[in-house]
Amino acid sequence: MLSYIFGNKKATEVAHLIWERIVRKGDTVIDATCGNGYDTLALLRMVADESGLGRVYGFDVQKVALENASSLLEVSVNPNEKELVKLFHRCHSEMAEVLPEDTSVRLIAFNLGYLPGGDKSVVTESQTTAEALTVAKEILMPGGLISLVVYVGHPGGREELETVEEFCWKLPVENWTCCKIQMLNRQLAPILVFLFKKC
Amino acid sequence: MLSYIFGNKKATEVAHLIWERIVRKGDTVIDATCGNGYDTLALLRMVADESGLGRVYGFDVQKVALENASSLLEVSVNPNEKELVKLFHRCHSEMAEVLPEDTSVRLIAFNLGYLPGGDKSVVTESQTTAEALTVAKEILMPGGLISLVVYVGHPGGREELETVEEFCWKLPVENWTCCKIQMLNRQLAPILVFLFKKC
Repeated sequence: MLSYIFGNKKATEVAHLIWERIVRKGDTVIDATCGNGYDTLALLRMVADESGLGRVYGFDVQKVALENASSLLEVSVNPNEKELVKLFHRCHSEMAEVLPEDTSVRLIAFNLGYLPGGDKSVVTESQTTAEALTVAKEILMPGGLISLVVYVGHPGGREELETVEEFCWKLPVENWTCCKIQMLNRQLAPILVFLFKKC
Repeated sequence: MLSYIFGNKKATEVAHLIWERIVRKGDTVIDATCGNGYDTLALLRMVADESGLGRVYGFDVQKVALENASSLLEVSVNPNEKELVKLFHRCHSEMAEVLPEDTSVRLIAFNLGYLPGGDKSVVTESQTTAEALTVAKEILMPGGLISLVVYVGHPGGREELETVEEFCWKLPVENWTCCKIQMLNRQLAPILVFLFKKC
């Protein structure tokens, strides 16, 4: 975290460090935007152990993203571990529909923007992001975290950030800590938002 | 730092933790807004050792603030340590004028707003804050930090934050990391801004 302030870490690295402080072996977590699967893999490594209880539910509306994520997992973990990841070619606003009933979700991670290396005209949209956050808020367990890395350099990126901020403003301070971390002299740098559901 | 995201620490506590990672014994540091002296005291404890080389230069435009800071130091440290603090009843925009020539300054701390418990009509002003930041930028050593805790709940608070942000936007990314940390669902919570001058 301090490394970020001192310019030695990237936003995604900071996000991973914070996830590591929250996520435990055997947890259920959600990668709301699989992209090329780097977050999915990082999350899997945090929840996987010999108990086989850990689960990573991954979502993306782009088939190519899920294929990339699946390939990355294939070459990075053993088949038993890969089994702990459930990938869905669906919008993250539908995440509650595929989860087993009464699942306690420790972390829900969003990467908002377009697929790196993919079709830049396909971006996450403010409307479905707002819907997904509303769902995420409900299914997250107390002591859990919603983590957002918001890219703002593409058309619609700023509006999506505003949608996230508006969502945060309404979260009651008694139950939520909503922290936004931003690089002021790098206008296109991703913005970090962490929503912690108090115990 | 993580404690802040999880709602367990106050903004000023986070600032102190970050200062501790930067400031070394024997350093020269500046408390640009002494207030009641709590930051001055914290800084003194970070720089003071038996070498007697450490210095804290403190500024405030309110005499009562300097009296309070002086009293706090009186009861908190021994006279030798207190000697390492130099308090000035001057605006922080004049900080360079009282420093010995060629002083390397490791940290410059600002608390923007009004004096807690004091006259709420006396607040730091955007114009002198901008001037002070321009001076601070020059006298800070590479590897040093400008730390700002910006209170926004009083009239003019938001404008002052904008002044700080405008100042940050112009700092070249090659030489500066400018990180803003904000609680999104606590509109009146102080905002943290850390400007790290790269080595």
